[in-house]
Amino acid sequence: MNSSPSQLVSLENVKDLLDSTEAFLFDCDGVIWKGDKLIHGVPETLQLLRSKGKKLVFVTNNSTKSRKQYANKFLSLGISVTEDEIFSSSFAAAMYLQLINFPQHKKVYVIGEQGILEELQLAGFTALGGPEDGKKTVQLKSNCLFEHDKSVGAVVVGLDQYINYYKLQYGTLCIRENPGCLFIATNRDAVGHMTDLQEWPGAGCMVAAICGTTQKEPTVVGKPSTFLMDFLLKKFDMSCSKMCMVGDRLDTDILFGQNAGCRTLLVLSGVTTLSALQDSSNKTHPDYYTSKLSDIFELMQP
Amino acid sequence: MNSSPSQLVSLENVKDLLDSTEAFLFDCDGVIWKGDKLIHGVPETLQLLRSKGKKLVFVTNNSTKSRKQYANKFLSLGISVTEDEIFSSSFAAAMYLQLINFPQHKKVYVIGEQGILEELQLAGFTALGGPEDGKKTVQLKSNCLFEHDKSVGAVVVGLDQYINYYKLQYGTLCIRENPGCLFIATNRDAVGHMTDLQEWPGAGCMVAAICGTTQKEPTVVGKPSTFLMDFLLKKFDMSCSKMCMVGDRLDTDILFGQNAGCRTLLVLSGVTTLSALQDSSNKTHPDYYTSKLSDIFELMQP
Repeated sequence: MNSSPSQLVSLENVKDLLDSTEAFLFDCDGVIWKGDKLIHGVPETLQLLRSKGKKLVFVTNNSTKSRKQYANKFLSLGISVTEDEIFSSSFAAAMYLQLINFPQHKKVYVIGEQGILEELQLAGFTALGGPEDGKKTVQLKSNCLFEHDKSVGAVVVGLDQYINYYKLQYGTLCIRENPGCLFIATNRDAVGHMTDLQEWPGAGCMVAAICGTTQKEPTVVGKPSTFLMDFLLKKFDMSCSKMCMVGDRLDTDILFGQNAGCRTLLVLSGVTTLSALQDSSNKTHPDYYTSKLSDIFELMQP
Repeated sequence: MNSSPSQLVSLENVKDLLDSTEAFLFDCDGVIWKGDKLIHGVPETLQLLRSKGKKLVFVTNNSTKSRKQYANKFLSLGISVTEDEIFSSSFAAAMYLQLINFPQHKKVYVIGEQGILEELQLAGFTALGGPEDGKKTVQLKSNCLFEHDKSVGAVVVGLDQYINYYKLQYGTLCIRENPGCLFIATNRDAVGHMTDLQEWPGAGCMVAAICGTTQKEPTVVGKPSTFLMDFLLKKFDMSCSKMCMVGDRLDTDILFGQNAGCRTLLVLSGVTTLSALQDSSNKTHPDYYTSKLSDIFELMQP
């Protein structure tokens, strides 16, 4: 962890940062967009970095979409990004199960949205729950037994705007009653910019609810866990010291970058305010900070 | 806390217990009933205790009903209990707000069921949310602002089988954005016997979800907090040493009794098994334990 004060991005240090960085890792919400609105100046800045030969990777904790859905979202905002450049926590959940050789005959129950189901299915796993269970209700009646699938071997919990008591009971029963059932969290973000105007409960809400009923702690595959980073390193064959993580959250993005040994740049266009960064209670100090990503573009203009 | 091994209830010690106890405090779920089914032998045992002049008090963490609704439930099971003998965590939430002189012009947002709303209204408070918000949905759209009432000064969270994203966002916004807004939990039970055949997510699930989004810890008014006990002591003008708390949970009932300095009796007719009681990891040891409440009745037969 870097405990020295963070530097405001300037003409001098931005050149230095560009010279010494081969890959930029970007968080999306609060850095690239807010909800469905692009943040000012992002396309030009990404273009500038690409023109300088930098590798770009988009690392998002938002599990509601698959990589394919994210690529479409980028395109709809006028930015061309390939699926290969996207690492979402939905994808991370599927990659984690592959890595641990999760048996193909076991099923995965999902508290979350379409993105998790899609990535699990792409990776060859049988997933149930998710959006399909969003309209289900329970009957708290005498002699009514709530049945669950005994072949579920993992419960993946992510952000779920259709969270309900049915899903909470289903996930809880699997974790409590199926021997060895895994409890995997895409991430634990407390809130997120699900819309441009305000924040909404994040995956941390649903994950905490399941911790509350099962009294167990999950394996987290998204930021700030380094699982995704280990995966990235293998894929790109690059040293962490040549990477810079750009994000708007101290507790996930910056910590994630620091955990992995990357340089870190905090942008104030998302959830973190300057006063939160500078508050004496804050122990996470990025190497650099700036108001928004396009400050890099502005500074680099001749 | 009592760290000596617990005694199995026997003819000898049950006489001792009856002689030295003026009031018996009972948990309901797992002691009196499971879901909507009476546990065998309960009416006779309660009748025996009443015939010996013992005061009976029913202390339940289940916040879904008001005291009036509980009195009706007792009646439907053939047991006559007055509202005055019932202390539910729904009632505790209302009494807590009275005790701290919560301003009448402020409102209370409820994540929970009818019981909390009824008790708050009986105590003169303006409550919103609860069942009414159970069918509401959210629109995660650009330029859509989710509005909340700025005059909400407290959020009360209890068991809610109609939990949804709307309520989670509403409660979170009140706690995060209304200055000084209180966060009150009826209780934090992980699971409970909402039906006779199995356990379901308890208030601990919804409370944890709000902790997850707000990153704040609640004030707990139900067991094992001693708030209810302080209230009981004032009402009955009796020493704790003359009371015995009877419950099926170590982490709420027995801890509650021990926190208050009561004698404690664990019944194994609810969530706690004999092996859990005797497991070396268990640090909560009741004075006595027995398989079910009516063992007292059986032992006292001539």
